Amino acid sequence: MERERAGRGEFRHFTTLTTRWSDNDSYGHLNNVVYYELFDSAVNAALIDAGLLDVERSPAVGLVAETGCRYFEPLAFPEAVEAGVRVERIGRSSVRYAIAIFRQDAAQAAAQGHFVHVYVDRQTRRPVAVPDDVRRFLEALQSPGSEAGGAALGADGQA
Amino acid sequence: MERERAGRGEFRHFTTLTTRWSDNDSYGHLNNVVYYELFDSAVNAALIDAGLLDVERSPAVGLVAETGCRYFEPLAFPEAVEAGVRVERIGRSSVRYAIAIFRQDAAQAAAQGHFVHVYVDRQTRRPVAVPDDVRRFLEALQSPGSEAGGAALGADGQA
Amino acid sequence: MERERAGRGEFRHFTTLTTRWSDNDSYGHLNNVVYYELFDSAVNAALIDAGLLDVERSPAVGLVAETGCRYFEPLAFPEAVEAGVRVERIGRSSVRYAIAIFRQDAAQAAAQGHFVHVYVDRQTRRPVAVPDDVRRFLEALQSPGSEAGGAALGADGQA
Amino acid sequence: MERERAGRGEFRHFTTLTTRWSDNDSYGHLNNVVYYELFDSAVNAALIDAGLLDVERSPAVGLVAETGCRYFEPLAFPEAVEAGVRVERIGRSSVRYAIAIFRQDAAQAAAQGHFVHVYVDRQTRRPVAVPDDVRRFLEALQSPGSEAGGAALGADGQA
Repeated sequence: MERERAGRGEFRHFTTLTTRWSDNDSYGHLNNVVYYELFDSAVNAALIDAGLLDVERSPAVGLVAETGCRYFEPLAFPEAVEAGVRVERIGRSSVRYAIAIFRQDAAQAAAQGHFVHVYVDRQTRRPVAVPDDVRRFLEALQSPGSEAGGAALGADGQA
Repeated sequence: MERERAGRGEFRHFTTLTTRWSDNDSYGHLNNVVYYELFDSAVNAALIDAGLLDVERSPAVGLVAETGCRYFEPLAFPEAVEAGVRVERIGRSSVRYAIAIFRQDAAQAAAQGHFVHVYVDRQTRRPVAVPDDVRRFLEALQSPGSEAGGAALGADGQA
Repeated sequence: MERERAGRGEFRHFTTLTTRWSDNDSYGHLNNVVYYELFDSAVNAALIDAGLLDVERSPAVGLVAETGCRYFEPLAFPEAVEAGVRVERIGRSSVRYAIAIFRQDAAQAAAQGHFVHVYVDRQTRRPVAVPDDVRRFLEALQSPGSEAGGAALGADGQA
Repeated sequence: MERERAGRGEFRHFTTLTTRWSDNDSYGHLNNVVYYELFDSAVNAALIDAGLLDVERSPAVGLVAETGCRYFEPLAFPEAVEAGVRVERIGRSSVRYAIAIFRQDAAQAAAQGHFVHVYVDRQTRRPVAVPDDVRRFLEALQSPGSEAGGAALGADGQA
């Protein structure tokens, strides 16, 4: 796992998200769980906004197979945050995103992590190939230096 | 309880809030609970932004004594929403807000409700008078036709 | 609205629910929003456990039209709580539940409120009659002294 | 990262947690985020129940530095789940827990992950040594075969 705090330049797509009073926990800052709500929202909003996910009808949908996050700096309601997204790897049926949460105007991530979607058939819930239109979108979200789509993910959907 | 769907003109303060993937429940729309997260956020953000609430230090804080909401129209992630806030009544130690959630650009509320804060001493948690600076702010959030501060709230903090 | 704190004897069905670390907010107690997660869970668990709701398949499902809660006493993670449920009124297409949250072994409610479901066709989302089997179940959850089903709810599903 | 699904025998402490209606997302199962609410609750409940964490007063508190989860099998409200906890490593100021969520009576984990607490001074939020009484408790939660406390965690609290 990469150990450095990420900078904004490493991400391809940004979404601004507002925080909520209920996000702050007993210690007065965003609870660790909330970051995953932001990850989920950033990835799915990107797909929906691009017309690539219809939650009610898309025949193939991405289920979450793995997530992780490291926390560097506390955030707190009522500040808004920005979620940066980059695609790290695309496999036959899965995609791994790198995601970071930035305080507004901050150069370095307050928290960063990863998020793995495995595409499954909506009805059978069996893995299927990442749909072609989704794949093209994901390729555009890979960082310049990435081995675009080169590393095939295994059956477990993780690598 | 008022039965009509509220229009934007009835509110004095608006906050734009983003929705989250996890807000949608099994029926594909914002869960009824989420509206209360938005209510809470709209009221507290208004107070914090006005410099009237320091969650860590303010000697008097508002605890929630009563809330309610009616739902007219479904909303769903990833749409952003706007929360309109108006102060309905100010008592010695309590304040009742009317709050409505609007789809962006919609004239009528998708949901609307109320939210009652009772001010208590941070340490003893006993009711105290609404602080003067907060009271002035709340008065400015009352609608033109309201009986500003006229109705004293009872010891139970509700009216 | 009733003003008295409810006692256990007023409810017909109890569910024990655990609290979560993230339920506590900046003031160290269950956030007001969490109570609605408990209400929702108590009502739907009762229906699912009775075999009356299949979230994926039931042709008629209950959408939430109105909720409300009054808060008397703080609760905090890690304590478990009990949700008491009673049916207050059954209309053609709607049902109003009274719900209270009790600290374990407490005689009086820590919070209490109401929850209105309107039955709709899963596809069209238009109101439909409360299904007969659900109606029989709801009647059994009315308090002894209630005018069982006597007060017809209006088309708006609220009374 | 270990790749095998964990069995119950690998955990030292179990907590039963109830699910909520709002936990299910648009696909009808527990949203990936919810598992972290369960992780957080299982770890903190163990500490509070053992008398080792007073959220309002303990001079040293554990802040979350890193979390991760892999998802094997869907869970859904209204089922209750069990969270198994084991301590993987104890450093000077940090502790890494392995946590798994089990369907009731299931032998294999439905999801499993890790959770890293770094102990900090409540006021300064600077890292401090894991308190002695907490350390003794954590040692008792290590699995038999572990190199108990042998691997010193670095200053970043992660390894």
